[in-house]
Amino acid sequence: MLSEFSLIDRYFAQRARQHTRRAALGIGDDCALIAPAAGEMLAVSTDMLVEGRHFFADVDPHALGHKALAVNLSDLAAMGAAPLGFTLACALPKPREDWLAAFSAGLFELADRYDCELIGGDTTAGPLNLCLTVFGSVRQDAALRRDAARDGDDIWVSGTPGDARAGLGVLRGEWQTSGADAAADVAHFRRALEYPEPRVALGLALRGVARAALDLSDGLAGDLRHILERSRLAAAIDVDALPVSPALARLPRAVQLQCALAGGDDYELCFTAARDQREAVEAAAQQAGVRVTRIGTMSALTSPAAAVPAIAWRDAAGAPLDLTLQGFDHFHAD
Amino acid sequence: MLSEFSLIDRYFAQRARQHTRRAALGIGDDCALIAPAAGEMLAVSTDMLVEGRHFFADVDPHALGHKALAVNLSDLAAMGAAPLGFTLACALPKPREDWLAAFSAGLFELADRYDCELIGGDTTAGPLNLCLTVFGSVRQDAALRRDAARDGDDIWVSGTPGDARAGLGVLRGEWQTSGADAAADVAHFRRALEYPEPRVALGLALRGVARAALDLSDGLAGDLRHILERSRLAAAIDVDALPVSPALARLPRAVQLQCALAGGDDYELCFTAARDQREAVEAAAQQAGVRVTRIGTMSALTSPAAAVPAIAWRDAAGAPLDLTLQGFDHFHAD
Repeated sequence: MLSEFSLIDRYFAQRARQHTRRAALGIGDDCALIAPAAGEMLAVSTDMLVEGRHFFADVDPHALGHKALAVNLSDLAAMGAAPLGFTLACALPKPREDWLAAFSAGLFELADRYDCELIGGDTTAGPLNLCLTVFGSVRQDAALRRDAARDGDDIWVSGTPGDARAGLGVLRGEWQTSGADAAADVAHFRRALEYPEPRVALGLALRGVARAALDLSDGLAGDLRHILERSRLAAAIDVDALPVSPALARLPRAVQLQCALAGGDDYELCFTAARDQREAVEAAAQQAGVRVTRIGTMSALTSPAAAVPAIAWRDAAGAPLDLTLQGFDHFHAD
Repeated sequence: MLSEFSLIDRYFAQRARQHTRRAALGIGDDCALIAPAAGEMLAVSTDMLVEGRHFFADVDPHALGHKALAVNLSDLAAMGAAPLGFTLACALPKPREDWLAAFSAGLFELADRYDCELIGGDTTAGPLNLCLTVFGSVRQDAALRRDAARDGDDIWVSGTPGDARAGLGVLRGEWQTSGADAAADVAHFRRALEYPEPRVALGLALRGVARAALDLSDGLAGDLRHILERSRLAAAIDVDALPVSPALARLPRAVQLQCALAGGDDYELCFTAARDQREAVEAAAQQAGVRVTRIGTMSALTSPAAAVPAIAWRDAAGAPLDLTLQGFDHFHAD
């Protein structure tokens, strides 16, 4: 068995040292030293992933390495911040070399694509737990904040939310794909669940175009509420406008809605922009190579004292839909 | 049972919002936004604490809140960085209000003393795990780096290392205190183990005075090797010069050495400084209100190709001592 230090060294520190460019001081000292670009702020986000909660015990470690960083890069994307680096703290039941080799490969393949350096970390024995903290750079006045939406803004979403939740449902046996595309659909859903793509390029392209933004980690219905609460607004969503992947469209309509509205783990961006920015939003999406869809409108609160900002769900004809879905809460049942 | 969001809100986010001053954007968005002082770098460190490994399951949650932040502030101290803020990610088996109230009280009492803001976090269900990432500010050329020691430097240590390990030994029944001071000694050891004081003021006072520094988390024998490896030097330590607390001095000499040399969890600083800085070191210690003791000397490697930099352990008369102690390695037995 490798000792802690040689294990960290082989799979993380050696690699980190080879790639250290931006940090003035990286792995191997008490602290790393980094700075945002001149005139910019450091954007910081942290996410903890726990076995049995965020991934299955038998998850492919390569996919887990990818996803652990992807969900953190997604937070940078949602602020319009450019990735700089990250720290990795992990508890491992025992240091298995094959597991670490695959995990670190998945992690660094994504890190390299976004030029995001490993600058520090901690490793200990314990129930499998991954905690990443990611650092990006953004001008303070260009950051896409949750409290920046305004009355009348369009509401947009990237990609096709719901596919990750559909993948989880297939793995759990909640529903099955069928027909000629059954196997391809399963592969599509699993890829959405295991290899989410952080929308970093879209977040960067939306600076100066979008107002508020966040990433969909807990589901559109739950996450959108965060923008509503912080911006003190209400929203109307055209449920028929929700972009649905061809694979998800082949599942029953009720499953589609459950996945697209209450499914977590998509890491697509939900953002608002002024009506006169529609062409600019489309241009940003094209530049980033990501599909975006306009799904609704922000509106003033009917009563400023309303305790819970409301989302009005409507169909394409404008008729109200009664949906009692919500984003999942980690201390409640999913 | 409180939901995840209301629980986070009550014990962490509300408090964090009340105290947000330095961060341009704190808890409640996808990222926090912070910046180091003008012309300075951001010092970043992360530590993960796991039940059964870093603390007992029945630990006083107030002490745990203190220690989780203290061990991270200690890393800033070891760089000579001034605390700015921290993120807290935690996995909790279930959100128990009394536990959270005590934990957050211990955490914020220390945070307030060092003017260190909670700027972000993540909470999830899972086996108890605390991961903090701490941020400080330091001028790049003033940082106390592990690779900065030089041949002939004095080696210093703060406080009385070994007390935390003595406390662990008492709790585990490895040894017992005796005599008239037995109860007071146990209380002293437990306080060292449960409420370590990060040497932030000393680290700041040593900027421009000390060269290399680190904090003693794994024990002097193991931690000092990190300075030797990074600075490509050897060291001679006068074991009889090691500062030992009155409580530890009442335990057998073999226990004293085991605790002082191989005991972890002290979070005292070990640092090097040029011989002509002795008065300046003493003045810095006095300013910080911390005792410091000169325990040895750095020296050139006898063979540049030596695989493992050596520590020569000597008594006050200069005679060599054979010690086969080492800092503990989290994947080996403690």
